[in-house]
Amino acid sequence: MELYDAMSSLRAVRRLRPDPIDTVTLERIYQAAIWAPTGGNVQPWRLVAITDAAKKQALAALYAPRWKDYSANYRERIDHLGEEAKARAERTLDAGDHLAANMGQVPVIAVFCFNPSLMALTDSEQARPTVVGGGSVYPAVQNLLLACRSEGVGCVLTTLLCMDEPAVKELLGMPEDWYTCAHVPMGYPVGGGYGPINRRPVAKMVYRNAWGSS
Amino acid sequence: MELYDAMSSLRAVRRLRPDPIDTVTLERIYQAAIWAPTGGNVQPWRLVAITDAAKKQALAALYAPRWKDYSANYRERIDHLGEEAKARAERTLDAGDHLAANMGQVPVIAVFCFNPSLMALTDSEQARPTVVGGGSVYPAVQNLLLACRSEGVGCVLTTLLCMDEPAVKELLGMPEDWYTCAHVPMGYPVGGGYGPINRRPVAKMVYRNAWGSS
Repeated sequence: MELYDAMSSLRAVRRLRPDPIDTVTLERIYQAAIWAPTGGNVQPWRLVAITDAAKKQALAALYAPRWKDYSANYRERIDHLGEEAKARAERTLDAGDHLAANMGQVPVIAVFCFNPSLMALTDSEQARPTVVGGGSVYPAVQNLLLACRSEGVGCVLTTLLCMDEPAVKELLGMPEDWYTCAHVPMGYPVGGGYGPINRRPVAKMVYRNAWGSS
Repeated sequence: MELYDAMSSLRAVRRLRPDPIDTVTLERIYQAAIWAPTGGNVQPWRLVAITDAAKKQALAALYAPRWKDYSANYRERIDHLGEEAKARAERTLDAGDHLAANMGQVPVIAVFCFNPSLMALTDSEQARPTVVGGGSVYPAVQNLLLACRSEGVGCVLTTLLCMDEPAVKELLGMPEDWYTCAHVPMGYPVGGGYGPINRRPVAKMVYRNAWGSS
């Protein structure tokens, strides 16, 4: 698939069929993630691909109450939106409800893990939340999402389960110094799946030489 | 360009020519970054594209001593490597020296900024460095890198300047609640530029249902 076609139609797909994804397709998707750059080429991340029914159910059971809280808060915040934006947000929330109810039945949940002791965290001294560790793992996550798009596999980047990291680490048998940063349910779309996306224009996102200057 | 071709040949390109990149090409690259997903589609990032000579020189002046420290430390750590791995690391370090010496002459330095107050930092309660904020900006960085690859523009993801964030914020006139997370020098390659990359195999990076299980 052409690069810009993949990027421009990669939208979150939350209604996923339980049908399995064949091994060869999955290998191509995992290979794409591995191609991503990491700081010093250390590759301080691993992916645990969950296909086991009991483990998927356990993750779904952790996810459901987190989604309930998050979506209730989100529903309150969309009240002030215009009609079109509100309708769009409600469709997203409905799809999120569907995902939460069916998380245990998707064919694969990809859990991305990372080890901060293998990373040069250049923003660790700043008086704000660190993000730089993410620079050595979310590029791999993005490659995986783009590869899913290319293969016709629906997916969405979620992070709510990071709130239950200790339980997830125990479920997956993870070592003490490894942590979790993304959970990507994957499966063939129930409906049309991918398509147009809604983003701000370049002039709103890219400044020239100084903040606010277009 | 085909998606997997772009991903599998996206290597760090640190020897960049000073020749300008035309506006239309740059717009396509910025558009690609904007297509990336963000939590709740909030798009809590901005890019400041630096082409001004004085500002590029100022960033280069901050970068040079940081690279000197980082690379000195890196050079010590490669002493124990085998011949091939050591030679590869030395080529990377030499290219990094070239970049540090020429950072002020590249046509564009893309500075990615983010606002953590616009992000749901689901790992903020965990007793380890947070990374989840990176999930709403490094996918955009990765899209930009892949777009550069597709356009034949060399680039490399750097984060060393996060150590000088207060100085960078002042230089760019950034608001208090916005921060920096990646600095991507961009330019046409001096040499061949893109090509084969060196990564671990899938079996070493992807586990099945439990940590360490292939």
